[in-house]
Amino acid sequence: MPGIEKLAINQITTDAQWSLREAVEGYAGAGVHGINVWRHKLDEIGAAEAARILSDHDMSVTGLCRGGSFPAADGAGRKAAINDNLRAIDDAAAIGAACLVLVAGGLPPGSKDLADAHKQVRDGIAAILPHARDVGLPIAIEPLHPMICADRGCVNTLAHANDLCDELGDGLGVAVDVYHVWWDPALEAEIARAGKRILAFHVCDWLVPTKDLVFDRGMMGDGVIDIPRIRGWVEAAGYDGFNEVEIFSRDDWWKRNPDEVVKTCIERHEEFV
Amino acid sequence: MPGIEKLAINQITTDAQWSLREAVEGYAGAGVHGINVWRHKLDEIGAAEAARILSDHDMSVTGLCRGGSFPAADGAGRKAAINDNLRAIDDAAAIGAACLVLVAGGLPPGSKDLADAHKQVRDGIAAILPHARDVGLPIAIEPLHPMICADRGCVNTLAHANDLCDELGDGLGVAVDVYHVWWDPALEAEIARAGKRILAFHVCDWLVPTKDLVFDRGMMGDGVIDIPRIRGWVEAAGYDGFNEVEIFSRDDWWKRNPDEVVKTCIERHEEFV
Repeated sequence: MPGIEKLAINQITTDAQWSLREAVEGYAGAGVHGINVWRHKLDEIGAAEAARILSDHDMSVTGLCRGGSFPAADGAGRKAAINDNLRAIDDAAAIGAACLVLVAGGLPPGSKDLADAHKQVRDGIAAILPHARDVGLPIAIEPLHPMICADRGCVNTLAHANDLCDELGDGLGVAVDVYHVWWDPALEAEIARAGKRILAFHVCDWLVPTKDLVFDRGMMGDGVIDIPRIRGWVEAAGYDGFNEVEIFSRDDWWKRNPDEVVKTCIERHEEFV
Repeated sequence: MPGIEKLAINQITTDAQWSLREAVEGYAGAGVHGINVWRHKLDEIGAAEAARILSDHDMSVTGLCRGGSFPAADGAGRKAAINDNLRAIDDAAAIGAACLVLVAGGLPPGSKDLADAHKQVRDGIAAILPHARDVGLPIAIEPLHPMICADRGCVNTLAHANDLCDELGDGLGVAVDVYHVWWDPALEAEIARAGKRILAFHVCDWLVPTKDLVFDRGMMGDGVIDIPRIRGWVEAAGYDGFNEVEIFSRDDWWKRNPDEVVKTCIERHEEFV
């Protein structure tokens, strides 16, 4: 039964309802002092203003979402992705984020070459890592569920993310989101392998049935994931950061009153995380 | 460019349109002489009648779909699943099927205990394997896509299926369906590991976007899977059986004229498999 001091809310959870300022005020007003910020919200006000708002409300910034999306059809596209990631690193550092959350990106349009996409992801991370190290901003590779491999992210197991960390070295870690990895029979072993590399721990729930591959995540307690068991593995590996609620829910939670969403996050975090 | 003699069609591809007799006549009439039979169609006429129809049309039976679905909430449910699988083995043998295709089954209602579901699957296979050996009917574990772990099958990687084969021994193999495993970075290695254990090779395609977790599979060539690459790995591992088209498609292929579906399978098999 983790306390509210361990709870962070990923801003996407109230994406449809709140700006960054409103989210910070809403979360902090309810006693939640961890937030993961999204770039499209940050861009509305800029990093300097965002940093002030976050600081004024004593918010810990668990991460900035998202870097990555490296694979592209040509060199210009790959270069643009790298430049975008360098900007994301600077923004993350400017708001004091604990990490930049990185999703790999999928197959470039028209491509069926998954091995090449894997290589482009590896090369993209290698290209941005020196700058991340320079500014002291850790990069957290978040393995995504295999069902969104083609269009969103082709790193789909914690094993793959750990392999990239092994290969590319310091400054790189992982974000473990129960939604993406709960099904993996190698999960316990790969969490132990990740150890202190775990930079973020995201929670929500897997609904049965799931009606959309992206926008139908459930609130903790409404699905089938044994979250406390996975949290136990993560903590045994040495992670002692926030439990961050991240819910994409186009037809349910994004349509609710955001204060109700936050209240539910607090209650369910205590009972089901 | 495989020839039509390598093409089999899984009966679910024309599930909405054709009975078993109609499917056999439709496939054979188009020059396709491999079929994977589904139990709900077989049960409409019985194994003896089905065997006559299949034999009369010179059909190779690549498999019977499906066994498995072992996890249950109580002992009575587990026992019923095992008995159902024993009947499936007998039916598969009666129609001369090359294997019984086995899907694991998901979490029992109300359960979040994935490790226990894994154990129930292992125990269920162990319980039916002696009978399968007695009648000389191989069992093919088909790893399913992780997105249907909770409700349909909790064996979601070829590595897990190979592990079960290692543990449980003779009479057990795997079915490799590109739709379920194409995203896996360990796929090439696990196909090589499976080797002669590969009892079936299923093809279709992954659509972008995919609109349903179960019923939105694509025809070969309409999606992003590099099927020839995976076929190359499977054949390098020693598989020389049929390429079996298996498409669940509620809003597209199941609504079309079945003769058109078969014709398209033939054309796309030649071009994209």
